[in-house]
Amino acid sequence: MAAVRDGAGLPEPADFAAPPTSDQRARWSDADAAARPGRLAPLRARFAAADIDAYFGLRRQHLRYLTGFTLGEGEEKVAGTSGQFLVSGGEVIVLADSRYTLQAGRETPGARIVEGPRDLAAAWPALVASVGARRVGVEASLLPYATWRRLEAAAPEVEVVPIEGWIEADRAIKESTELDRVAAACAVADRALATLLPKIRPGATEHDLALELEWLIRTGGAEAIAFEPTCLVGANAALPHGAPSDDVVRAGAVVLFDFGAEVAGYRSDMTRTLFVGEPGERDLAVYELVARAQKAAIDQLEACVDGDLALPSGRDLDGVARRVIEGDGRWPAYGHGLGHGIGLQTHEQPSLGAWSLDGPLPSPTVFSIEPGIYLEGETGVRIEDLILLDAAGGRVERLTQFPRDVIVV
Amino acid sequence: MAAVRDGAGLPEPADFAAPPTSDQRARWSDADAAARPGRLAPLRARFAAADIDAYFGLRRQHLRYLTGFTLGEGEEKVAGTSGQFLVSGGEVIVLADSRYTLQAGRETPGARIVEGPRDLAAAWPALVASVGARRVGVEASLLPYATWRRLEAAAPEVEVVPIEGWIEADRAIKESTELDRVAAACAVADRALATLLPKIRPGATEHDLALELEWLIRTGGAEAIAFEPTCLVGANAALPHGAPSDDVVRAGAVVLFDFGAEVAGYRSDMTRTLFVGEPGERDLAVYELVARAQKAAIDQLEACVDGDLALPSGRDLDGVARRVIEGDGRWPAYGHGLGHGIGLQTHEQPSLGAWSLDGPLPSPTVFSIEPGIYLEGETGVRIEDLILLDAAGGRVERLTQFPRDVIVV
Repeated sequence: MAAVRDGAGLPEPADFAAPPTSDQRARWSDADAAARPGRLAPLRARFAAADIDAYFGLRRQHLRYLTGFTLGEGEEKVAGTSGQFLVSGGEVIVLADSRYTLQAGRETPGARIVEGPRDLAAAWPALVASVGARRVGVEASLLPYATWRRLEAAAPEVEVVPIEGWIEADRAIKESTELDRVAAACAVADRALATLLPKIRPGATEHDLALELEWLIRTGGAEAIAFEPTCLVGANAALPHGAPSDDVVRAGAVVLFDFGAEVAGYRSDMTRTLFVGEPGERDLAVYELVARAQKAAIDQLEACVDGDLALPSGRDLDGVARRVIEGDGRWPAYGHGLGHGIGLQTHEQPSLGAWSLDGPLPSPTVFSIEPGIYLEGETGVRIEDLILLDAAGGRVERLTQFPRDVIVV
Repeated sequence: MAAVRDGAGLPEPADFAAPPTSDQRARWSDADAAARPGRLAPLRARFAAADIDAYFGLRRQHLRYLTGFTLGEGEEKVAGTSGQFLVSGGEVIVLADSRYTLQAGRETPGARIVEGPRDLAAAWPALVASVGARRVGVEASLLPYATWRRLEAAAPEVEVVPIEGWIEADRAIKESTELDRVAAACAVADRALATLLPKIRPGATEHDLALELEWLIRTGGAEAIAFEPTCLVGANAALPHGAPSDDVVRAGAVVLFDFGAEVAGYRSDMTRTLFVGEPGERDLAVYELVARAQKAAIDQLEACVDGDLALPSGRDLDGVARRVIEGDGRWPAYGHGLGHGIGLQTHEQPSLGAWSLDGPLPSPTVFSIEPGIYLEGETGVRIEDLILLDAAGGRVERLTQFPRDVIVV
C-alpha cells in the first residue's frame, strides 16, 4: 500500500530545491554556446547521404538549439521570417528583420545575420546562392505546402529536398546541462504544488486553482509555464485532456493537476492526483494500481541499466506498465501513451506508446512516465513523473521529487 | 496640444465598462450558433469556381468560426488531428479523438464527429469518400508539405487543390456580436491598465509590471490574454517588438505598454506610452506628433464614411498617417505597418501597411491604428487603438476607451 500523507505530513515548499541563481543561469548559457558546434556536427554529417549542400530550418526550438537565437512561445507567429535559418557546410545564416537584428547578433555571435524578408520566396534565390547550394534540405513537416511551391518556383535550379525528424532525433539525446535545467524546472513545479496545497479546499474552483498554480510557477523561478496548467475535480479527471472549469473542489472527490515549468528554456511536466478528505476504498485501490504500473516501468528501466542489457523501446515500456493494469483486470488501462520526451518542447522525442517505433530508447535522455485509469462519469487518476535515463552512466532517476504517496488535503 | 492628466485626473477602473455577465456570454454563444450557417454559405459558394467538392480546414480559429468546436491557444499542438474538419456541399465533419468526442458533440451539434486518426493520411481516403469528393480544397498555407504529399499518395484518385485566404477574407467582415466582443475585450484591457497605474513607480521592473498587467486582465473578465503583455521603459520602447526585462521604471523615461484581452474568443490590442514624472519638451512633441498621425487616419475614415465615399485601402490609410510624421520631418516614421485586423486572432485581415494589397477596406470590420516614432537608444512612442468601421451604418468608432491624453504617473 502507498503511504498516506496528510496534515503536518504534507510536502512543503522547502522540501524542494531552490530556484536557480543568476550565476547558474549564466553558466547554462555559456554551456549552450560551447555545445553548439557539437550540435551542428551531426546535422552536417547527414548532408552527404541525403546529397544536400544545406539545411533550412524553421522550428523555434531547433533555432535556439542550433544557433542560440531565442523566440518566445508563439512569437514565431508575428516574427515573419525572423528566426528561420540556413546551415551550410561552413556557415550558419539567421534571418532577422529590423526588430530582431540586435537580438540575433547578440545571441548568435557565430552566425551571419541576413535581413529577414517579408516573403521568404523573394529572398530564397539569393540566400541559397550565397552558400552555393544546389540541393537544400527543408523541414517538410513544418513548411506549408504553398511556401514550398513558391521556393521551388523562385529558384527552379535549386532542388528543395524534404527532410523530417533529424533535429528531433538529435535533441532527444540530452547534454548534462540540458538535464540540469529539466531538473530545475521540475523543482519549480514541485515547490509550486507544495505551496498551493493549503488552498485546495472545498469550494475552490478548478479555474482559480489552475490560475494560482500558474502564478506560483511564474513567480517561483520559472520564466514561463510549460503549458496551461490543468486542474480537474472528480469525474472531470476522467477526461485526460480537459480544461479547468468553474466546478469546485469537494470532499470525497479527487483533484488532478497536470502542469509544468520552463527554466532557462527547458521544461518540466508532472501530474498529481490528490484526495480531498479520506479517500474511499475503490479510489485508493485505483491510485495504488496506477502507482504500481508506473513503478513497474521504472523498475524495468533500472533492471536494464543495472544489468547492462539493451534498453527497451518506448512501445515495450508502455506495454510493461499497461500489462500491470490489464493483468489486474478491474479497470481499463489509459488510452493515451505511457509518456513522451521533454526538453525545449513539452512533447518531443522519444515517444512511449503502443504506436511508437521499435528500437531502443535513446540515452542520455529524459521522458515522462504517466499511466492513468479513467472511469468515465466517476473519477480519474494519473501519476506523472519525469525520468532521467543515462545507460552509460548507470542512472535511472526521478527528476520529479514531489512524493507519490496518497496525499489527503 | 494633447491634454495632460496626472494625480487625481488619471483614469480609474470605474471609467470603463464592466466585464460581461454570464447571461451576456450565453447570448453571444447563441448568436454564434445562429450565425454559423451564414458563415458556411460563402465558403460553399466558392466551390463551383474552384471546381472542388469539399474544403479541408485546420486552423483552430477557422474551426471555431465555422463549426463551434473550440481548442485553446496552442492546444492544436497536442490535439493531433482533433479539430481538423471537412466541409462538403451538404455536411460538416469534425475530427475528434476520444479525448475530444464529448466536447465536439456538445459544441458542434450540426456536425458529424469522426474519430480523429493519429495519422491523417491513413484516414483520408475514407474521409473524402464519405462525402463523395473527388477534388478537395486544402489550406495550402497551413498544411505542411510532407502531410500534403501523404494525402496525395493515400488517395491518388482524389485531387488535393491548394486554397488560401478564403476564410481569412470572410472573417475580416464582422457580425455585430463579434464587434461587441472585441469592444468588451477592449474594456477589460482599459480597466486593467487603469488599475495598474498606481503601481507604475520608479523601481518597478518591466517584467513585474507586465506580469501584474496580465494578472489584472485574466482576473478582470477575460478568459485569456490576447498575447504576452509588453512593458518597455525608456530606450527599450524604441524596439518595436521587445520583451519585458528586469530594467526598472525611472523618472523622466517613458513606459510603453502593448497588451490585449480575450473575451468569449475575441481579442483586443492596445498600446499606451505613459510618462513617469514631467515629460521633457522633445518627448511631448514626439507624443503629440504620433497622436496627430493617428488622428489623421481616423479623420480620413470619418470623411469617407460621412461623405459616402469609397473606403481607402489599408495601404492608403497607412500613407495618410505616415505622411503626417514624414511631413513634420523631425523624426523618422514607424517601420512597421499602421495596423491590422483583429478578432479571433490578434493579427488577421485586413492588413494596413505599405505592402498591403490595394482595394478598399472591408466593412463592417475592426482593426488597430498604431503609428509610432522610435528613436534608437533614446525613447519610443506608440499609440494604438482599435477602430470599428461600418460604412453602411455610418460608424467610425474607437473601441479603445482609455484616453490618449498625455498621462503622467
